Amino acid sequence: MGDPITFETHPSRYHHWRLTVAGDVATLVMKVDADHPHRPGYELKLNSYDLSVDIELADAIQRLRFEHPEVRAVVVTADLDRVFCSGANIYMLGSSNHSFKVNFCKFTNETRLYLEDASAESGLRFLAACRGTTAGGGYELALACDEILLVDDGSSAVSFPETPLLAVLPGTGGLTRLVDKRKVRRDRADVFCTVAEGIKGKRAKDWNLVDGVVSRTKWEATVAERAKALAAEVANVPHGPAVELTSIAPYRHVELTLDPTGRIADLTISAPDAPPPAELHAEGAELWSLRAFRELDDALLRLRFDHPTVGVVRLRTRGDAAQVLAHDEALAKATTGFAREVRLLQRRVLKRLDNTARSLFAVADAPGSCFAGVLLEVALAADRFYMLIDGSEQITVRTSVANAGFMKTGSGLSRLESRFYGTPDQVARVLARGAEGPIASEEAEELGLATVAADDIDFEDELRIAVEERASLSPDALTGMEASLRWVGPETLETKIFGRLSAWQNWIFTRPNATGEHGALTLYGRPERPNFHWTRT
Amino acid sequence: MGDPITFETHPSRYHHWRLTVAGDVATLVMKVDADHPHRPGYELKLNSYDLSVDIELADAIQRLRFEHPEVRAVVVTADLDRVFCSGANIYMLGSSNHSFKVNFCKFTNETRLYLEDASAESGLRFLAACRGTTAGGGYELALACDEILLVDDGSSAVSFPETPLLAVLPGTGGLTRLVDKRKVRRDRADVFCTVAEGIKGKRAKDWNLVDGVVSRTKWEATVAERAKALAAEVANVPHGPAVELTSIAPYRHVELTLDPTGRIADLTISAPDAPPPAELHAEGAELWSLRAFRELDDALLRLRFDHPTVGVVRLRTRGDAAQVLAHDEALAKATTGFAREVRLLQRRVLKRLDNTARSLFAVADAPGSCFAGVLLEVALAADRFYMLIDGSEQITVRTSVANAGFMKTGSGLSRLESRFYGTPDQVARVLARGAEGPIASEEAEELGLATVAADDIDFEDELRIAVEERASLSPDALTGMEASLRWVGPETLETKIFGRLSAWQNWIFTRPNATGEHGALTLYGRPERPNFHWTRT
Repeated sequence: MGDPITFETHPSRYHHWRLTVAGDVATLVMKVDADHPHRPGYELKLNSYDLSVDIELADAIQRLRFEHPEVRAVVVTADLDRVFCSGANIYMLGSSNHSFKVNFCKFTNETRLYLEDASAESGLRFLAACRGTTAGGGYELALACDEILLVDDGSSAVSFPETPLLAVLPGTGGLTRLVDKRKVRRDRADVFCTVAEGIKGKRAKDWNLVDGVVSRTKWEATVAERAKALAAEVANVPHGPAVELTSIAPYRHVELTLDPTGRIADLTISAPDAPPPAELHAEGAELWSLRAFRELDDALLRLRFDHPTVGVVRLRTRGDAAQVLAHDEALAKATTGFAREVRLLQRRVLKRLDNTARSLFAVADAPGSCFAGVLLEVALAADRFYMLIDGSEQITVRTSVANAGFMKTGSGLSRLESRFYGTPDQVARVLARGAEGPIASEEAEELGLATVAADDIDFEDELRIAVEERASLSPDALTGMEASLRWVGPETLETKIFGRLSAWQNWIFTRPNATGEHGALTLYGRPERPNFHWTRT
Repeated sequence: MGDPITFETHPSRYHHWRLTVAGDVATLVMKVDADHPHRPGYELKLNSYDLSVDIELADAIQRLRFEHPEVRAVVVTADLDRVFCSGANIYMLGSSNHSFKVNFCKFTNETRLYLEDASAESGLRFLAACRGTTAGGGYELALACDEILLVDDGSSAVSFPETPLLAVLPGTGGLTRLVDKRKVRRDRADVFCTVAEGIKGKRAKDWNLVDGVVSRTKWEATVAERAKALAAEVANVPHGPAVELTSIAPYRHVELTLDPTGRIADLTISAPDAPPPAELHAEGAELWSLRAFRELDDALLRLRFDHPTVGVVRLRTRGDAAQVLAHDEALAKATTGFAREVRLLQRRVLKRLDNTARSLFAVADAPGSCFAGVLLEVALAADRFYMLIDGSEQITVRTSVANAGFMKTGSGLSRLESRFYGTPDQVARVLARGAEGPIASEEAEELGLATVAADDIDFEDELRIAVEERASLSPDALTGMEASLRWVGPETLETKIFGRLSAWQNWIFTRPNATGEHGALTLYGRPERPNFHWTRT
């Protein structure tokens, strides 16, 4: 894919969005610059989007949470007369390889879920104000908002034209949100998803595809009024103080090194080297709990997009476990909106880790290892956890308040609850034991925290062989296997999107009917008609 | 695939299983006849299985429920010394097209779930008695049982070698059952799924992969004792009277006609032409409630396997709605085990309909239409329901006890609850209105039961165009779309298996790493090593 992708941006450098804040209402205006795609080869016409558009959207939501805590409602709208958003750019999709397509959709899904997370957890309501065509991913973005207004001008419609026009799915959460979130009757959803031109006006409202249809003359006033009303309905959660999200380049707490031949990455996270300040916001975005996780987030995205052939990630930690625990405690005790946002960001980054389709092996193989508190979550997110048994029991894990429930996975369970699914006693046992102090490797294995604990005669060979074996297996089978094992127990909108909808979309993306020489996605915009294989599966 | 597949069989004609009954314990012995595969081209060595083996297994479970109601425990075992079951036959998989592979896995999954359904609903416990290799689908079969015993002979192991050896998943429920049903710790499950030789002895027990490991000398006695104990633990559910499942050929109540050019099927179910007998078992397997649904089941399997290019199924009903309601009422009131089994069979067949990857359009277009009670479930299972508004309001739907909760979908919701997900009031309204009498088309549309109600000026054209349009869309996109819309709301082991695990497996089956020229599944048993593309998605 050429140069590494930059995931850091800033409103002053946005090409595709304009973010303005007025009192407790912000406005995010989509006005995609057709000439600034994420890579050359296609134009972003008609407010269609690609990765660069979504990176800016993710950045804007993050900044609203940290830099504009006074905001209570966000109007998501567009600056074109006849188009709100026409969805993901088809030429971009058609010219992308499978891995990129899947990772693009995953990032887009994560960004959509961030709107819903901000609404559920931070009292930030989103109003989709849709004038003109609201199609495909554009409607999926609207579905992620709390309320959808559609202009009633005789032509503006919401639509999912993917199945009839492209032979793929509305794959960034749309199908799931239609029936599960908005409770659109499933037979109507079936009709809606096959009508390429979409549904407009009163019918869109009757079917609950939108929350309101508004005439052109009343549009501006109604949008402003609904935004104010949404802002007012928010419960009184603490907000601020504002903290500017300064650049994380170069990383200070995260190190990512690559072995391209072995297809292995080493990702090491360092603990803070000092206690947290008395006022957590005093250090701004340099606060370890915030900066280290922003760096981890960026490293995970680089892994996904820039290093697609890396199969195994060895996750390590180093530093002073006591400092990690001190930061966890300070965050949990603090009552500011800022502290809440830092914890929520950590939770989102850990979910990004859960949702990264690489084999994750956590490794504690040196006395400086510190899988403690929120960093223990990293080990619990891994597929396996290898611990060296050292004679002096310097290698340990430690628990903190961060392991006690707040850092939920997509399923709604904590990582300890996922680890010990069906045996809640074991969760309680680990937390009780952790409260007494460090747990050395052998005991960590007995408690079920370590997958493998071995002494120094065996450890290195055992880990090396496991990593080499893992890296030799089929990447596809591992992706499916890990996706089936990582989310045990209950399902949520989130796990349904990543587990079910995305799995179907991945399959459909590989089918000749979509991406073959005569597939609908391949031929989009050309005069030829697609040529389908009719066998049903 | 050559000749139509026969789904009807009988223990006297089994090639691969031996069913014996002694008191309240039955034994199902797997002894696959290598020379009787479902189609020529491979040998069923080492108790590997194909569709023909699973058809017999499904038949055996069905017959146990109806013909041997005295049975309380079933020992599932094998008659080879070193192999319990080595899983699905790899040469069969490698030489099957994608559609067949997917439908084979689906049928196998349904059969596995039938064991669990019999255990949950009919007081029939299953004991997997595994001597020797218990690999892949063999272990998946064991996982579907209530208890697993493994012989402790130093070599017998349970294993999931699919990922390391074949680059595919243990796709007939195995991954889901490991972590969700048996609560195997997910990091251990990860290890287990990559160790081709599997895990044996004490470790298999410690990890909860099996319930007991038993020495060779104590094997026979322990199996007998555990079977007796399982039989004894069953709650006192009513059983019998026994009814023999006689042949359903030729169909009496179901008609399946095909338009191969249009890729459309018409499936019509007829109502009973007489009231139910005072004693429901008096008619044996000829009882309409039983026979009509066995025929429907068979027709659905024929559609799946023998007519893979049919994209749209028009579902119709005809006959006397009052007779359907009378049969539904009689079944619900009866307290016999037989009546319970008939209702459970109806429920399983309706789930088979939900789970059939074809576009289902229910059509009520003639006064003789009778979408009533359990046949209304057929309309509610459909993706859409078209009703003709006739001047004399002869076309109606009717509700019965069959719509009130018993006929659950895989998600655990009734079809009305799925239809009106999130608005339980509407379920109550429909049931209350239905109790008052027939509901004509226009009102059915207002109540949300009909997707489209149209008068005879528009009806025929509207339906024709909808069917033609549907049949013109990509089969793959429709499969993914329907799978995403049909199961709204809660997830269960069952929907996770069909929605998540199967979707990943479908994708993996299409990947070059599995089924390409140099893929692991293709090259299995040959000297060449597979050649993987390393990109992760």
